[in-house]
Amino acid sequence: MLQDYLYIFDMLGTMSCAVSGVIVATRLRMDPFGLLVIATVTAVGGGTSRDIMMGATPVFWIHDNNYIYVVFISVLVSVLWLRRLHKVPPYLLLMWDAFGLAIFTVVGAQKAMLLGFSPLIVVAMGCVTGVAGGMIRDVLTGQIPFVLQKEIYATASLFGALLYVGCSYMGLEPIVVMIIAILGALSLRLAALYWHLSLPILSAN
Amino acid sequence: MLQDYLYIFDMLGTMSCAVSGVIVATRLRMDPFGLLVIATVTAVGGGTSRDIMMGATPVFWIHDNNYIYVVFISVLVSVLWLRRLHKVPPYLLLMWDAFGLAIFTVVGAQKAMLLGFSPLIVVAMGCVTGVAGGMIRDVLTGQIPFVLQKEIYATASLFGALLYVGCSYMGLEPIVVMIIAILGALSLRLAALYWHLSLPILSAN
Amino acid sequence: MLQDYLYIFDMLGTMSCAVSGVIVATRLRMDPFGLLVIATVTAVGGGTSRDIMMGATPVFWIHDNNYIYVVFISVLVSVLWLRRLHKVPPYLLLMWDAFGLAIFTVVGAQKAMLLGFSPLIVVAMGCVTGVAGGMIRDVLTGQIPFVLQKEIYATASLFGALLYVGCSYMGLEPIVVMIIAILGALSLRLAALYWHLSLPILSAN
Repeated sequence: MLQDYLYIFDMLGTMSCAVSGVIVATRLRMDPFGLLVIATVTAVGGGTSRDIMMGATPVFWIHDNNYIYVVFISVLVSVLWLRRLHKVPPYLLLMWDAFGLAIFTVVGAQKAMLLGFSPLIVVAMGCVTGVAGGMIRDVLTGQIPFVLQKEIYATASLFGALLYVGCSYMGLEPIVVMIIAILGALSLRLAALYWHLSLPILSAN
Repeated sequence: MLQDYLYIFDMLGTMSCAVSGVIVATRLRMDPFGLLVIATVTAVGGGTSRDIMMGATPVFWIHDNNYIYVVFISVLVSVLWLRRLHKVPPYLLLMWDAFGLAIFTVVGAQKAMLLGFSPLIVVAMGCVTGVAGGMIRDVLTGQIPFVLQKEIYATASLFGALLYVGCSYMGLEPIVVMIIAILGALSLRLAALYWHLSLPILSAN
Repeated sequence: MLQDYLYIFDMLGTMSCAVSGVIVATRLRMDPFGLLVIATVTAVGGGTSRDIMMGATPVFWIHDNNYIYVVFISVLVSVLWLRRLHKVPPYLLLMWDAFGLAIFTVVGAQKAMLLGFSPLIVVAMGCVTGVAGGMIRDVLTGQIPFVLQKEIYATASLFGALLYVGCSYMGLEPIVVMIIAILGALSLRLAALYWHLSLPILSAN
């Protein structure tokens, strides 16, 4: 039951990240298979990093090929959809990336909790799963990673992971905890984008 | 017997990627050990990524140090050879990189098949092994990764991996399958470079 | 006993790399949690790469959360310290990075030796542990990796790893071997920075 919800969220996160990869790749005028490579590494990069660090290998998408099929379908649909737009508005990338960040943070935290890791590691694995895919996408394509930009980003992932751990310890229903944590991380990130919120900089000079 | 051919191809791929790393590193005027680092990560990066994702750890070159020795010898010979050239022509990097791409794609697919993975994962592991080493080289040295350039690249790796799986299922001799798939991927990449072939771009505007 | 010394050095290396990550992140005017992400990946990136390649997963900091706490404390203290400086002098980053390079090279070599790997792999794992964290920091933040700059860097790590293996085979006390190898690598790197030493370039033209 919990596993089913987790699976659905995982697929939604995979889709969101794949679409964000497609948007970056079309901007760079990449061909269909280059685009597929970028969409795939963005979609499975976070979970792959998490599984590798936890020693949960072969990694998840080797066990369950549905993740790859979801990437294929997301790429196909989003390419057709993006072609119908006159111009891709800049907020599209930010939004799909935000969905992926929020969902994958909570999915990653949940998977680490199911494996019995300590709360600190649950939070860390949530953040790794949430931010690594987008980071790999940005490094491979030469974009400035979102984590380096001034709007709240890593903080939103950390907030979602902390919400997840906090609400779990309060004994709420797992599905309720997941929804609260996803909405928390997503709201914080979207609010930061909308109102250009940023934390104070701890600059040296 | 098949293992022997696989081993020979694996060493040829290691050599090709090491030479491509040396060419990039000499362009950047790196010192001998910096050059050795770049050659090594290019040569073993693809297979290391594959083994880590499949959970086949410790990774291959920890088990079998011959890979490292082949990198050393390739670095030594190619440094001496490059010094004798007046100027390194641009196509040298492209050619050695293409050899590495084609050979490693098929070696990676073969290794995944020997471990009993599904055809989809065999293709994915072929592509990972084929493109990851060069990607790591380009990201570390600040070059634009080949996968982002307009000539067919990821597509050539995918083509080789599909050829490998397709011909294997047709029941051809494993060694014949390997040669067909390597030549297929290599021809497609070299033809793309020679005639500046590219797939249509799925651009949004 | 040896384990205790190893642990202390490992924590010192973690602290040094975390501080180097903080210095880069403050330069880029990152917010506190972005800064924490960069400090963490710099501090644990080398050892994480080593453990993943050796198949020693879950990786070290999942087993032992003290590493994460040391990162937190190092970030907190170094942020407060950097804020008190009028201007962060450029050599600060170079020095902390050099400490991390020297210490982690020897810690990584030691850990590989305890697992019974061959001398070649012990040297390789020392270099991976020494240079990977800083490389990840520089790639994520768009800096030119130190390994690409002209002063001796990868060479200092290799020198430390070779010193470690050499002195171990001479039968010296493990703690003496560690101190000799750390001081050797550190002296070579600092001397290279101070006198702008570099190895001859094996350039092609």
